[in-house]
Parts: sequence; structure tokens; C-alpha cells
Amino acid sequence: MIPAARYGERLAAARELVAERGLAALLVGVGADLRYLTGYEAMPLERLTMLVLPATGPLSLVVPRLELAPARACPAAAAGLVELLAWEETDDPVALVGRLVRASTGSRAPAGAGEAIRVAVSDRLWASFLLRLQEVLPEARFGLGSAVLRELRIVKDADEIALLRAAAHAADRVVAAIARGRLIGRSEADVSREVRERLLAEGHERAEFAIVASGPNSASPHHEASSRVIGAGEPIVLDIGGTLGGYGSDITRTLWVTGEEPVHPPYREYLALFAVLRAAQAEATHAVRPGVPAERIDAVAREIIATAGHGRHFIHRTGHGIGLEAHEEPYLVAGNGEPLREGMAFSIEPGIYLEGRFGARIEDIVVCAADGPDVLNEAPRDLLVVSGE
Amino acid sequence: MIPAARYGERLAAARELVAERGLAALLVGVGADLRYLTGYEAMPLERLTMLVLPATGPLSLVVPRLELAPARACPAAAAGLVELLAWEETDDPVALVGRLVRASTGSRAPAGAGEAIRVAVSDRLWASFLLRLQEVLPEARFGLGSAVLRELRIVKDADEIALLRAAAHAADRVVAAIARGRLIGRSEADVSREVRERLLAEGHERAEFAIVASGPNSASPHHEASSRVIGAGEPIVLDIGGTLGGYGSDITRTLWVTGEEPVHPPYREYLALFAVLRAAQAEATHAVRPGVPAERIDAVAREIIATAGHGRHFIHRTGHGIGLEAHEEPYLVAGNGEPLREGMAFSIEPGIYLEGRFGARIEDIVVCAADGPDVLNEAPRDLLVVSGE
Repeated sequence: MIPAARYGERLAAARELVAERGLAALLVGVGADLRYLTGYEAMPLERLTMLVLPATGPLSLVVPRLELAPARACPAAAAGLVELLAWEETDDPVALVGRLVRASTGSRAPAGAGEAIRVAVSDRLWASFLLRLQEVLPEARFGLGSAVLRELRIVKDADEIALLRAAAHAADRVVAAIARGRLIGRSEADVSREVRERLLAEGHERAEFAIVASGPNSASPHHEASSRVIGAGEPIVLDIGGTLGGYGSDITRTLWVTGEEPVHPPYREYLALFAVLRAAQAEATHAVRPGVPAERIDAVAREIIATAGHGRHFIHRTGHGIGLEAHEEPYLVAGNGEPLREGMAFSIEPGIYLEGRFGARIEDIVVCAADGPDVLNEAPRDLLVVSGE
Repeated sequence: MIPAARYGERLAAARELVAERGLAALLVGVGADLRYLTGYEAMPLERLTMLVLPATGPLSLVVPRLELAPARACPAAAAGLVELLAWEETDDPVALVGRLVRASTGSRAPAGAGEAIRVAVSDRLWASFLLRLQEVLPEARFGLGSAVLRELRIVKDADEIALLRAAAHAADRVVAAIARGRLIGRSEADVSREVRERLLAEGHERAEFAIVASGPNSASPHHEASSRVIGAGEPIVLDIGGTLGGYGSDITRTLWVTGEEPVHPPYREYLALFAVLRAAQAEATHAVRPGVPAERIDAVAREIIATAGHGRHFIHRTGHGIGLEAHEEPYLVAGNGEPLREGMAFSIEPGIYLEGRFGARIEDIVVCAADGPDVLNEAPRDLLVVSGE
């Protein structure tokens, strides 16, 4: 749980940054940014819900009238930190936002070309809203809200880390349950459905993804679950996650299904590949500590995999930040020199993919702690060799 | 199932409209528009996936390299209708899209101010992509893709209607199961979780929402499920849905939980309110046929409710279109004079809400057929009076 007082601190910090960056206002639509600032989780629908956070003056939360009750109940509104402005079904809420921005800058009409104001919008605001805002505020130059919010959201506090840990442990239990169960003769889609049901049963409010990639499908990193039937003597990459208390889980483990009588143990070549991957994931994790550039974690994993001759089979970055969004900053990717800071949370998930044949991936969620990595997932990382019967 | 050939027809129709509207290109990000045109369902993540559909020249699907395999497998790519362009983790995919748009217009560099081109983007494209596209194509004026795609997506074909019907029947069964089960003593959130699990078990790939609004919460149309414990002698508004085969379900039924020994039957006042609502929903449905303006359906429901003195307690439009998105056009709302056409699919869901006391809503998904309404949901619409024990 995020204590209600935290939202006041976040709003104050965001407003300070808005002023510091010379922005007239930050406009936040439905999504993780809104939830971060106000605790309000609204459905992403065509009716505009928008937090208007100007450099000066009152904070407003523009909401469709029929969502007034849940909006009112959100921590920031309940604490009186934002003023609710409800709009009716036949109103134009974008025009209302435009008026609020203008009122906060003290201008009543579009300014001349020389008086451009700068407005930031949340990164995931839909084009349908942004293009209308650009029409309504022709004097404004628009930029991304992450210019303000990344600084706040990229470092997690203890309450956020506790939620990430609870989500990770729930996902750990789902992996264990799937590894114990029958797999042979079932379709990937059927196992995927079981994963989603188990994530919910373990307390997730959303089961966002459940990649079940068996046999040659394991060579496609973002394979979803298909109608392919799982057989003996093949690997399965299981990459699953969702949200618990708003915060994401995301774990990948690789299984090898042997069957029984006859038993089909993993190929020697696959075991060798997996050993390289295991070392890369462990060393990359070991390299985590404050001050280390994000790209260094990627490089550590990549060097080990490349040295073993699989460089061109590791076709994605090593990891992504995680929090209220499944993927957020920081990204562990070449070119990102940003130093890790205490409280950053991200995946470490190298993979090796031999197209048309097989692949493997190991993924944990890791928090950068003061003294090194705090690995949230506890499920064993070795190749999970199971009978699948 | 949507036959693979359908995607070729949709792409051809979209391209014709792009040319007809004088657009240089239509740029379609991840989401329902992309799925409609190509059959490709990608996860909405920070890596750009974009269909570039120019007025002339080849169609390209720009995809992150690690999603090449699922992209290749989508019907439009498998049929060779779109050319796949994979980008690596350290490339700039937005710049690539900019080059594709320019190449299709025959210009190599930003045009002068007098030569503006017009580009449409999918309505739900994120600001993070749109603002970058505006930077990369400063000579372009940007508009919404719905200008092109609404014409296509607003009318459903027989295959789409079959999927909507399958989704509706699955949701019907979930409502029946919840009404049969224990309710008293359980939290709304617990019932909501059961709804989500049952939607998945009934073949939904996603359980998007499960509103369980009991007692006074029933007066808030978009109440989500809370920790409130359900008691005897109160109503529950159950509004649930998700997707099956990509198409949405969305049903609302109102229950009254009586308990046993003593039994708490519905208040007389509540029964009267519900009778008004039942009539409004039935008459609005009855009014559906080709040529009738969308707003007329809203007016029919609203007149009946207003005549009974509840006009100001019906605080939302009567319905929304449904298909690959939970809410899409046409909207049944005052001011929308668009005539209904055969194949349009939408919800009809009047509600009456007495703030702080109680509310009720009835919702079906209805298709406008040649001879009148084709109601997809079959669950009984009367107040579901159940013991809840």
C-alpha cells in the first residue's frame, strides 16, 4: 500500500519540477502517471480524464461526470489536493483543459507567436486527445511529461519496492505450479490460460501476459501462446506477469520437458547454451550497484554470451525498468549511460535464440540497493527439467 | 475467426480512402486499428510497431526485431500484403517511418512551408510517438486515423458479429453463475475476481473489467470493485466484460440479494425504479433499425426515464459501439445524428442512479440488423432476485 500522504509529496515534487523546467502546465491523462501522482486508477477510455498541474494556481482533475464517485475517492482528491471538475456527456472537456491552462498563465486568449508557452503531456496520452489539445492551445509548444515525471518515478521508495516484491513472489509461485503440472499434450494457449488464472488466484488484479513458447517457438522472444501442442524432449520459455497492487511482476524461466518412458533429457548443446545464459544473467545481476551505468549491465551479459559465440543470438536489450508500468525507465541497453541509483527497479533478462531451433531466457526483477542487487524473484534460475506428464 | 483474405480487402479499402482524402499516409500504431487491418496483435509497449500505409507505393510494417516472428505470422504479413521492416534495439524507428512517408511522396527532405503534406495517425497512438513524428516530419499536418478507419470499422461483417455473439454468450454464462453463487459476506473485490476467472474459463482471452457495485456503490456508474462486504437486502450492479477472439463482451445485470431467514425482498421504491429502467432499455432496443439516428436511441430511453421523474438520475449516454475496442463508434448520445446502419454493434445501457442510496443498470450488446435489433445477450433482463447465501 502507498500511504495517502505520499501523493501530496509527489504532487508537490512534480509541481516544483514543472516550474523549474519553465512549463506552463503538465497535463496527465489516464495511466501510470496519473496513478503515481493521485492514486487514481481510471479505465483508459474515450472520455477524457486529465490532471491539470500548472506551475502556479490550483490543481484540477477533469473527469467525466459518471466517474465522479471513483475520482472523488482517490487519495489525492480525498485529501483535498486536487479540485474535481466534472464534465457532462455533451461538454467539450479538451476545451475546458485549454481554459484551465490559459487561466493559470493569466492569458485569456491565444497569445501571439512571440509568447509561446510550453506544456507537457503524459507520454501515453492518445493522439486523439493530443491533437485536440494542440488545436485548442495553438500558442503552446508540446513536450513529453516524462521530462518531469521520469525523475520521480525512476526511483522507487520502500513501499513501492514492497509491492514489486509481493508481485514477484506471487509470480514465482505460479512458475512453480506450472512446472509441477502436466504440460505434454496441452496447447501453449491452454497453459497460458492456466498461468493467467493462477496469477489472479495469487492476488494479481491483472494478468497482462503469459508467454508460453515451446520447441522452436522458444526462439522467438515475444512469441505469444499458440495452438502448438507441447511434446516431450523440448524446451518451454515461460515469461509471465501482471500487476499486484498496481505494480508489475515479470519473470521468465526456461523449462525442459522430458516426458517419461522414454525420457527425453535436454540435448548436450542446449545444456551448454543454457549454462552460458545462466552465467550471463548471474554476472549481469552481480554487476548492479549505484553509480554503474545502465548500459554496463547490458554489456556484462552481452560479453559473456558473445564470448561463447552467441552474440548474434542475443537480439534484445538486457532489461527494462518496472513499476506502475510493465516497461519503463531505466532501460538496460547500449547507449544508456545513466548511472544506476538506489531504488531503481528493472528486469535482467538475457536470452539466446537460435531461429527455427530453440531458445532460452532467464529473467528476474532486481532492485538496485545501496550495497548491490536486491533480487526480488526467488524461483530457482536453473533449467527446470520436468517430466511434464 | 476472421478469414485471412479479409485483411487484404480491408487494407485495399483503407488505402483507397487514404488517397481519396488526400492523405500522404496513414500511420497505425499498436492497437485495434492495427489488428483490424493486419490481424496483428502486438503488446502496447514502448518499442514502436507501426503500419505505414501510404497513398501509393508499398505497405510497410515497422517492427522491433525481437517481435519479427509474431509479426511475420500475422495474416497480412503471411499473405505478403505488407513488407516487414525490422529495427534493432539501438535504431530510431520513428526516423525510419519519416523516411518511408517521404519516400512515398517522392520528396527527400522536408518540403517548404507551401508544400505541406497530410498524415493521419491512429487515434490511440501515444504522445511519445506522435510528438517525435511531428519532429521528424515538420512539413506534415497531422490528423486522426479515424477519419479513414471509422468508415470501415463502424460496420461489422458476419464474422465479426459471430465473434461478438460468442463473447456475449460467454458473458451471459458468467452472469448466471455469479447470480447462482454465494454473495453475502463476500467483498465486491472477491466477487470481481471470480468474474474475471470465469470470463477466462469461458474462453475470453482478456477479462477487462468486472464492476461489482453493491448497496450505495450501485449509484456510481463506473464504480470498480471495493473491499465493501455484500449484505442481505441490497442491490448489486454487475457490469462485466473482456474480449474473446479479439471482440468485446459487455453486459450489465442488476441483482437484488435477499438473504434467507429473514428474507429482505427489494424495496417497493426500487422495484418501481427498476420497472422504469426495464421499459426504457426495452423500448430503446426496440427502436433500433437502419436509418434511425444514433441519438434517437438515447432519446427513447431518456424520455421514458425522464417521464418517470428520474431524468437527472440518468447521467450518462445510452450506449457505445463495440468491436475490437470496448468503446468505439457509434456512440448513442445526444448530438450524434449519424443514422444507424446494418451491421453496427453497440451497447444499450440506460441506468438510474440515486446518489448515496442505490442505482440500477441494464445493458445488452445489440446489432442493427436489416429488420431491427439483433440482441446478442440472452441472459434475462429482469431484476435478478437471489438469496445470495
